Amino acid sequence: MSDNNGSSPGWIDEHLNGVRYGLEATVIAEQSSPYQRVTIIDSLAYGKGLLLDGCWMTAERQERHYHEAIVHPALCGAASIERVLIVGGGDGGTARECLRHPGVQQLDLVEIDGLVVELCQQHLPSIGGSAWSDPRLRLTVGDGIAWVAAAAEASYDVVIVDGSDPAGPAEGLFNRSFFEHCRRILRPGGIFVTQSESPEAFRQVHIDIVRLLRQVFGHADPMYGWVPMYPSGWWSWTFAAVDAPRYHRPDPVRAATVSAGCEIWSPRWQRGGFEAVPASIERQLASPEFNIAEQG
Amino acid sequence: MSDNNGSSPGWIDEHLNGVRYGLEATVIAEQSSPYQRVTIIDSLAYGKGLLLDGCWMTAERQERHYHEAIVHPALCGAASIERVLIVGGGDGGTARECLRHPGVQQLDLVEIDGLVVELCQQHLPSIGGSAWSDPRLRLTVGDGIAWVAAAAEASYDVVIVDGSDPAGPAEGLFNRSFFEHCRRILRPGGIFVTQSESPEAFRQVHIDIVRLLRQVFGHADPMYGWVPMYPSGWWSWTFAAVDAPRYHRPDPVRAATVSAGCEIWSPRWQRGGFEAVPASIERQLASPEFNIAEQG
Repeated sequence: MSDNNGSSPGWIDEHLNGVRYGLEATVIAEQSSPYQRVTIIDSLAYGKGLLLDGCWMTAERQERHYHEAIVHPALCGAASIERVLIVGGGDGGTARECLRHPGVQQLDLVEIDGLVVELCQQHLPSIGGSAWSDPRLRLTVGDGIAWVAAAAEASYDVVIVDGSDPAGPAEGLFNRSFFEHCRRILRPGGIFVTQSESPEAFRQVHIDIVRLLRQVFGHADPMYGWVPMYPSGWWSWTFAAVDAPRYHRPDPVRAATVSAGCEIWSPRWQRGGFEAVPASIERQLASPEFNIAEQG
Repeated sequence: MSDNNGSSPGWIDEHLNGVRYGLEATVIAEQSSPYQRVTIIDSLAYGKGLLLDGCWMTAERQERHYHEAIVHPALCGAASIERVLIVGGGDGGTARECLRHPGVQQLDLVEIDGLVVELCQQHLPSIGGSAWSDPRLRLTVGDGIAWVAAAAEASYDVVIVDGSDPAGPAEGLFNRSFFEHCRRILRPGGIFVTQSESPEAFRQVHIDIVRLLRQVFGHADPMYGWVPMYPSGWWSWTFAAVDAPRYHRPDPVRAATVSAGCEIWSPRWQRGGFEAVPASIERQLASPEFNIAEQG
């Protein structure tokens, strides 16, 4: 990646399997934590941005696609939203969107890499916005997997997993044991959501996440949207619930509270995102061979 | 763009406003027509592909997003589909999808650049597939704008504009005069569709196309989808009709005929694509200031 580290902009690319997506940008900070290489850039097209191990994570003028999409279907759909947990999300964008809901009383943000939080607070303050100083936020630098395993049964209304790809520090955020703990700590009427990769660039990983969440929670559905800087630009978030697919029914009062401040999300956009399952993925998710194999 | 023209793969990128999307590929043919530079590449990720003036147009393993999206909402929604016109579409992919509908009796394909047709037939034969030898296809190398102006009133059931960006040879495919002729040559119950650019990378152009089509046809709605190789990966097609927004109601028999052979499109996916209007674009399209200004 960063073949550019001077004062004049050059191309900074993420490479994946013969495809690259690059921004003309300058590296303004780069440090390694025990977990990963953390890079802050300043780009012509999208303002300042973050890469982890050379993969695009977010940028000031391209972050709302992701953060609005992962938050509002869950926060508008859960039976109550007093206690919310975010695993990952060290840039603060998911916390910011959660805290736009006045019903949230306590938001636990558990990010494994303190360097991500530190560099984002310093260089990308608009992404976390007022979340960093909101008294409802309780920031913990620590292991989200251990946090979830240790949390009490039925202790959160919403659990949001805002991690990177299932490799490196985020690998343990995509397996059955982790998902089962997430289910255990959800209150009745609660909603779980995780980013669930690109149906194009990471097709099998995407399908495996949806299938596993359906097994663990009972109800799980992918919602499709756009994050131009992620591989293929085509992204997904998968929402899950135990009692009913309540992420399909946004509460009108909560939706009205946040709608005017959204660039991307609306109840209508969300309906579209859940409906826009590409034909071949819909067939694969419905395939009886899979269901037999997985249940066997 | 093609800084690579040898036998070993290198990066071939499209650049736009500080962003680039590249494929690792080899150039296998490059010629200039009177209209544009036509490049055929062979990529590791998506097979052989086409660029016009250095902009990604299509590739063997990434073309169905675009071609299924532009064709089936129109061909499943029009009152009848006996006579279909494609303006542009020289790679043959749109024609191939149209001819999967047995109800199509005559398909006029009017492409301005014979070199595009020639190189695509030679190097990308799977994209046009059996369309090139289908007796229902009438291929004309010529000016689509003149063709539409000369066509008889009410002579087509469906008019599809499959052109490149509104610059260079495709510039005249996005103005009021052209759209008014398209409306004139549509039969009652007919449907018009054009690719309508990225709501992210070409936001204002996108909005202007939707607004203008609403004025000219009465009913027009954007449908959003994905073309990973296009700027931002987030793309749109706008469908228009005079009598009713009939592109929202796919005929179940026609839909069933083509569904099993689709990778992306389904009636459900299409519903999602029409619903997934991002909040800020929905507000802008509904803005009364605009409506007053445009009608004045």
